[in-house]
Amino acid sequence: MSETVEIEPIDQLVAMLRSGGLDFSGSLEQARADFEAMLATFPVAPEWAFAEGQVGGVPAVLIDYPGADAARVLLYMHGGAFISGSAQGYRSLAAGLAQAVGARGVSVNYRLAPEHPFPAAVEDVVAAYRALLADGVAADHIVLAGDSAGGGLVVSVLVALRDAEVALPAAAFAISPWADLRCTADSYASKAAEDPSLTREALVHSAGLYLGGGDAGHPLASPVLADLRGLPPLLIHVGSAEVLMDDAVALARAAGQAGVDVRLEIWPRMVHVWHVFGFMLEQGRRAVADAGAFLRSRMG
Amino acid sequence: MSETVEIEPIDQLVAMLRSGGLDFSGSLEQARADFEAMLATFPVAPEWAFAEGQVGGVPAVLIDYPGADAARVLLYMHGGAFISGSAQGYRSLAAGLAQAVGARGVSVNYRLAPEHPFPAAVEDVVAAYRALLADGVAADHIVLAGDSAGGGLVVSVLVALRDAEVALPAAAFAISPWADLRCTADSYASKAAEDPSLTREALVHSAGLYLGGGDAGHPLASPVLADLRGLPPLLIHVGSAEVLMDDAVALARAAGQAGVDVRLEIWPRMVHVWHVFGFMLEQGRRAVADAGAFLRSRMG
Repeated sequence: MSETVEIEPIDQLVAMLRSGGLDFSGSLEQARADFEAMLATFPVAPEWAFAEGQVGGVPAVLIDYPGADAARVLLYMHGGAFISGSAQGYRSLAAGLAQAVGARGVSVNYRLAPEHPFPAAVEDVVAAYRALLADGVAADHIVLAGDSAGGGLVVSVLVALRDAEVALPAAAFAISPWADLRCTADSYASKAAEDPSLTREALVHSAGLYLGGGDAGHPLASPVLADLRGLPPLLIHVGSAEVLMDDAVALARAAGQAGVDVRLEIWPRMVHVWHVFGFMLEQGRRAVADAGAFLRSRMG
Repeated sequence: MSETVEIEPIDQLVAMLRSGGLDFSGSLEQARADFEAMLATFPVAPEWAFAEGQVGGVPAVLIDYPGADAARVLLYMHGGAFISGSAQGYRSLAAGLAQAVGARGVSVNYRLAPEHPFPAAVEDVVAAYRALLADGVAADHIVLAGDSAGGGLVVSVLVALRDAEVALPAAAFAISPWADLRCTADSYASKAAEDPSLTREALVHSAGLYLGGGDAGHPLASPVLADLRGLPPLLIHVGSAEVLMDDAVALARAAGQAGVDVRLEIWPRMVHVWHVFGFMLEQGRRAVADAGAFLRSRMG
């Protein structure tokens, strides 16, 4: 008699991530190419249409699908530690989330470091957002979302827009946000053994490239240090198996300190940006569906 | 011409709380009586039926209403800083939440300090929970909820049940939990000006009476310090105008550290246990409805 051992999808994913870890310590070009090649294998739904364009002079992937409300926009900021990743690579996550919101998607190819250090990424997304408003999209018909570096960037962009007295979007969603570039949170140690994706060493390296000698304590680089007063409702997702867990907690605390409507969800056993693995992980699909409902419910 | 100034219900509530503050520095008997008299003014729905009884030898208020699923139980722990309050006083909150869950309610009159110091309250709720199981109620048909001291108690009870290897309930809900009796969190200072209900001084006084000379760092007294491994899904609500905000954040963090499924919501401008003011506050009614849906969705 043989015994069937059931392996849960999350365990398969962890094993896959452990075996296929990306190495950003060598050639940056090679690491970027490896990352794009991995992301390119993720399936896309047949109804999603992707077009490359510009929004406010910033390159972006424009996402459409049958039934998308053209008057509503999900503005997406991809991950990749500010030094890699692309809107093309993250197209399945941005499109899935746009569809869950019921909006068309605009996923920004903000400039990457070290070629374009902080605050280039913030400036590019702000320019894209301003262009949407100039194009006649109502602010309360826009929501912001992003993962990892893009999750922190969501909040930095909101702070920059508030400071510039631009009408703010209806809501925002930060997936596994990297929101404190000082990289000093306790969870870098307490979750190190569990996290198959990220290490403090890798993030410190990326932060150095992004900041280009600048201060990690700048509130637009580390939005956990910003005054978040006046920001729209904020949803934060993080996995319990992430060295970035405390960034999410600190971001929720900073939001609450400023009186922002904030919901933090810590998902058991989930890994960094598990939402992108929805093709193999039920929790990824559910997280995207839940977040889409949250964002849509806050829109005008 | 006269001008109409709209006053929002939350502003009315804050003014009411500031003018009618309870004083626990004098006679404890008088303060308890004043608190009960205030709670007794809160309206109850005509369909709610309340009966006084015992569950596991512990006095409790038993809550029923037309359509309640008798096989499902919301076990409720009232607030009052462990030295005051009663299941009778908090009947409207427990009944509203039970109804939102679709379950009958059991609201425990656990023993109060200083007559019965820690861990009497924990023991009483554990006894009531065990009695429900002995009575044939399935563990996954039970949810726990409580506010303020009762919100921390919810988590302490879960830890005690886990340690005793008792089958755990389906989910738990902590409203504005007082979860760290050391009373050292930053929000005691950062939210002091905003919070119309609580002061650090009053809570330090109550903690002393509850602990009776014991250690505020005991994990069953301050569950933010407990290992929360194995606990069921936990929903935490706190207002942004609460000196206890950081207790809620720390509790979410401790849950995430232990891999517990946790959702923390910080509601803008809301005050300590705003859920009990649902009769005048839309956010109170919405918070109870949302939490009821969360708890029900996690039940077997």
